[in-house]
Amino acid sequence: MRSFASDNNSGVHPAVFEAMQRANDQHALGYGNDAFTERATAKFKQLLGDDIAVYYVYGGTGANVVGLSTVTRSHEAVICSDGAHIYTDECNAPEKLIGCKLLPVPHTRGKITVEGIRKHLHGFGDPHHPQPRVISISQVTELGTVYSIAEIREIADLAHEYGLLLHMDGARISNAAAALNLDLRACTRDAGVDVMSFGGTKNGLMYGEAVIFFNPALARDAAFVRKQSMQLASKMRFVAAQFEALLTDDLWRKNAQHANRMAARLVEQLREIPEIKFTATVDANGIFAIIPPAITKPLQEQFPFYVWDESTNEVRWMTSFDTTESDVNAFVAAIKQALREQVPG
Amino acid sequence: MRSFASDNNSGVHPAVFEAMQRANDQHALGYGNDAFTERATAKFKQLLGDDIAVYYVYGGTGANVVGLSTVTRSHEAVICSDGAHIYTDECNAPEKLIGCKLLPVPHTRGKITVEGIRKHLHGFGDPHHPQPRVISISQVTELGTVYSIAEIREIADLAHEYGLLLHMDGARISNAAAALNLDLRACTRDAGVDVMSFGGTKNGLMYGEAVIFFNPALARDAAFVRKQSMQLASKMRFVAAQFEALLTDDLWRKNAQHANRMAARLVEQLREIPEIKFTATVDANGIFAIIPPAITKPLQEQFPFYVWDESTNEVRWMTSFDTTESDVNAFVAAIKQALREQVPG
Amino acid sequence: MRSFASDNNSGVHPAVFEAMQRANDQHALGYGNDAFTERATAKFKQLLGDDIAVYYVYGGTGANVVGLSTVTRSHEAVICSDGAHIYTDECNAPEKLIGCKLLPVPHTRGKITVEGIRKHLHGFGDPHHPQPRVISISQVTELGTVYSIAEIREIADLAHEYGLLLHMDGARISNAAAALNLDLRACTRDAGVDVMSFGGTKNGLMYGEAVIFFNPALARDAAFVRKQSMQLASKMRFVAAQFEALLTDDLWRKNAQHANRMAARLVEQLREIPEIKFTATVDANGIFAIIPPAITKPLQEQFPFYVWDESTNEVRWMTSFDTTESDVNAFVAAIKQALREQVPG
Amino acid sequence: MRSFASDNNSGVHPAVFEAMQRANDQHALGYGNDAFTERATAKFKQLLGDDIAVYYVYGGTGANVVGLSTVTRSHEAVICSDGAHIYTDECNAPEKLIGCKLLPVPHTRGKITVEGIRKHLHGFGDPHHPQPRVISISQVTELGTVYSIAEIREIADLAHEYGLLLHMDGARISNAAAALNLDLRACTRDAGVDVMSFGGTKNGLMYGEAVIFFNPALARDAAFVRKQSMQLASKMRFVAAQFEALLTDDLWRKNAQHANRMAARLVEQLREIPEIKFTATVDANGIFAIIPPAITKPLQEQFPFYVWDESTNEVRWMTSFDTTESDVNAFVAAIKQALREQVPG
Repeated sequence: MRSFASDNNSGVHPAVFEAMQRANDQHALGYGNDAFTERATAKFKQLLGDDIAVYYVYGGTGANVVGLSTVTRSHEAVICSDGAHIYTDECNAPEKLIGCKLLPVPHTRGKITVEGIRKHLHGFGDPHHPQPRVISISQVTELGTVYSIAEIREIADLAHEYGLLLHMDGARISNAAAALNLDLRACTRDAGVDVMSFGGTKNGLMYGEAVIFFNPALARDAAFVRKQSMQLASKMRFVAAQFEALLTDDLWRKNAQHANRMAARLVEQLREIPEIKFTATVDANGIFAIIPPAITKPLQEQFPFYVWDESTNEVRWMTSFDTTESDVNAFVAAIKQALREQVPG
Repeated sequence: MRSFASDNNSGVHPAVFEAMQRANDQHALGYGNDAFTERATAKFKQLLGDDIAVYYVYGGTGANVVGLSTVTRSHEAVICSDGAHIYTDECNAPEKLIGCKLLPVPHTRGKITVEGIRKHLHGFGDPHHPQPRVISISQVTELGTVYSIAEIREIADLAHEYGLLLHMDGARISNAAAALNLDLRACTRDAGVDVMSFGGTKNGLMYGEAVIFFNPALARDAAFVRKQSMQLASKMRFVAAQFEALLTDDLWRKNAQHANRMAARLVEQLREIPEIKFTATVDANGIFAIIPPAITKPLQEQFPFYVWDESTNEVRWMTSFDTTESDVNAFVAAIKQALREQVPG
Repeated sequence: MRSFASDNNSGVHPAVFEAMQRANDQHALGYGNDAFTERATAKFKQLLGDDIAVYYVYGGTGANVVGLSTVTRSHEAVICSDGAHIYTDECNAPEKLIGCKLLPVPHTRGKITVEGIRKHLHGFGDPHHPQPRVISISQVTELGTVYSIAEIREIADLAHEYGLLLHMDGARISNAAAALNLDLRACTRDAGVDVMSFGGTKNGLMYGEAVIFFNPALARDAAFVRKQSMQLASKMRFVAAQFEALLTDDLWRKNAQHANRMAARLVEQLREIPEIKFTATVDANGIFAIIPPAITKPLQEQFPFYVWDESTNEVRWMTSFDTTESDVNAFVAAIKQALREQVPG
Repeated sequence: MRSFASDNNSGVHPAVFEAMQRANDQHALGYGNDAFTERATAKFKQLLGDDIAVYYVYGGTGANVVGLSTVTRSHEAVICSDGAHIYTDECNAPEKLIGCKLLPVPHTRGKITVEGIRKHLHGFGDPHHPQPRVISISQVTELGTVYSIAEIREIADLAHEYGLLLHMDGARISNAAAALNLDLRACTRDAGVDVMSFGGTKNGLMYGEAVIFFNPALARDAAFVRKQSMQLASKMRFVAAQFEALLTDDLWRKNAQHANRMAARLVEQLREIPEIKFTATVDANGIFAIIPPAITKPLQEQFPFYVWDESTNEVRWMTSFDTTESDVNAFVAAIKQALREQVPG
């Protein structure tokens, strides 16, 4: 089965698998007190600066919650897009774990702006009012767009002007860095990010994400929060070994570039087809398009994907590090075939 | 490095690794909507009965919390050993996620009894008083002992008499079943268990545990609780594939038997040494002994292990599925050597 | 000092005070096991039906949270106005205590409609998605408007069609009933409300609200939730005695009618003044108007009130059961005086 | 009805009632922005020092939770007596609101000691282990005993040595100060207390307690925590007016002394009766005694009181500021009568 439903439908990159196999050679202490974890963190420091704190966790929701919980108390609020993963797809985990409120900002193709954020920047000091503490953005956004560095910087400056922190849900940060053709540091800390989720699972790992604090003082409680959030892996070396592989020889970038390229290729081949209307620029590895309802089902049976908006029949197609050119070709062929076969409704 | 510190210092069983590799062949839908998950659950149903609900999670604390959260509200209480993993080692995750109280029962070598439990069975209906809802026992216990079926049954009967549920933290349930020489069903549902954590990581998996509800009606909210508890793996097939391997050809039992046998072998070889005083029967794969303080450090440098009780210098040695006979021999030799070399304090 | 800032700036009605004094005659058992509580609840049953469950609490936020917590789990969601008290003014107490998400519906002068609510009625069964469980409306709304019975009924029908409950924040339910010229039952249970906060403090009580469940089965955990939410008064008889007085001889209605009448009087006297622009119909005891910024400060120094919207200089004026005609006259005079004195900016 | 069941069965002191009546004269801003609150806090500062932060709340559980929540995060722990009100009588409110663990220390007649506390002072820095943050003691204890200043000081010194805070549940702090014949400051901050619940309801108030932080820096989040904990009274002036009365002309002490004296009088008159066995010294206003089971019921019908320990028929009798000498005489007479009438079992 080949899927365009999500980049988490992909498998594990061979180099990552080999790294896990090498980590299986001997015994190792649990919970991160091992050489693999040390080496993975050293790799992160090479890329992002020495003065960072890195906490490995199991999954993406866990990464977001550990990062946000560590820096937020329950009377505070996190300002985010009303389409953010933390807002719509984590079954209230942030509210449950922190007790805080997520203040939604209407987004434009996944992005929020300082104008939208500013509407929530009031009520400071009023005990009835949740106190804004963090602005959270997703990079790549949930709608497949990529913030420019200038856009991030503008939000970061606003955050810092008000004494807030900037959080980045970087489940697809590698795809963003590849799209921007920048290194990871330029895309994150140098753009003003204070704490982030660094995604692994969607970019070739089996499981595992990292929470990164660019100011280690913010991470004071992170080790406890991670354990309490049930994100402390006992056999941590297998998470760390995967990250070590991902951060070696630019594998993170190669994987991301490939995924992005496959998305571009798919768009390229469909551009001329009038029945397919792309609803946004394709900045990275997510494609959003309105397609004829009649072709959805037959197509999904061959290549799974999600209908994003039932009302318009906008669909989402995701490519991943292991999407092949022939996957794309086959999918395009299937689309064309479905269009030919569709009976006018 | 070879370690006796914990069975989670072990690696991944080769058959489990191969299963993960096979699962890496193609794309698969996320979150458990895949054939691997279906097959793993079918295996569980063969072993434990058709009318069960199975939820795979990342880790042991996650398994305990998802199981307990699903059946408990915040004004209720969980009665458990004051040495239980949920009580001492989960950084308040149960209190945080449920809001409930854990009512501690003093244990004898890890076990609690109906006498101890009964002391908490009062205050029903009094709104000031947390309402007992669950009794939780660990099998194998945290002190390496194994409850007999009669002991579990007696606790289960008490629980059910009062309308409570019996939860089992089965992080090492396979070791217990091997020790009791019984099948898994006899050790769990047939002994009166209502909900359990089924351990994988300590018995040859890389990561992954399962929460099992023996009455599916209890699991009504489990899917939501799992997601909210950040325990829903996106690439679930890799967890499921591991469990499928573990439950095939009795691998779960073979691994556990081996670990238990290595513990017995270690005890056997040390029995005659007067300086080593075993503090409990060795029922499964955990050994507790008081050793001369002077040998602790030198020994730990060769083979990591934990001092369990600083005041008496009681130590814990754990064997695992991948502890070899030569590991045991080497450890015994090191102990003897250390005893010879110790300078009388 | 006379205030138009809030109806909670008012005092205690003399009949309520006398009832507290009578309750001070003897000892009484705590926590509601007393004759006063019994009698107050009997009064509620006369007004609302015998088959209800009534729980007295300290305050309005407490009432909302106890009502909502009792019927909601943390993976669920409460749909409400984005101007609702529970959404904007309770410092995340609902999120903190329940762990749930409040899904905001944009309001029109405080009211939400089935169209707005429907946008949140999706994702049922999806474990990533908070599960809608309750729709909450405020009556009187935070913007001073009053839902008609038909409007409530339409929302209730939608709620029940989807298996949801309808919650009413009735901090000012008496003012609404007075405005609608209906009895309390017609305004609440007969309109489809399932659980409500019944306000006392804003209508002549010193402190005290009631949570009312129109289906006692919903209240199964309410006694525990109330205690855990720190809303169980030890000297409960003083809360109950106040409610008994409020529900005797229609005091609740007389107080509310008076407050509403004072608001109408104020509007009446200001209607002709072109500089005062009323931004909504004045249905009950809350008045919203845009006034010249220059008169705000001088006026506030004599009669406190809040600026509701800084951007337009919309202000809120609340009347209460103890606002007098001469308060209104004096306020009107002060407004006119301020208008005369204002220096054109 | 006259009751010895609890000091919260008492009424409201006339001076307190008059103060509430005076506060009912005019309008006042809500939430504590009023002259009554200012004056009450000034009184507290006179008694306890200028550099304190005072937060008024509705009830005792609310006071404990607001105080503890403000200074504790969910991965931390509160060490307390296993008979503490926070441990046994608050329906998990501390666990629910903070998410923390309460670590129980076995008590001797309500008191805990540094020996017992020390057993929990380990695991610092271990992310599996809840981090001790607060030691909480009750003064008067739940068993009617009063800590000496030396005992408090010893616990405070231990707390501060480990970087912990000392919390005092002072629901009956006035009774303790009266018993120790010391001023409030000597009993609290000068003995090393960092944060406390200052009780009002059990000493002549209708409702209302105060949370006091002896280091205002600790109170940074208190205003938000209070609101979120649903303990912010809208008509705050009525709480404050009560406290102002209580702290004027030593009413707090006079009330407490009277309650203590009534307890002493009761003991005095029962001392010679061999069937009544006092189980502890009567330090303040709580009496614990084992009485013949046969007299319990008939006696309770005349004068309510609680059986504290069913197994031994130990009962609790509480006196209060409004217990009269004739109440005591009548109760003693009833006891003697019941003893005469009891049929030997």
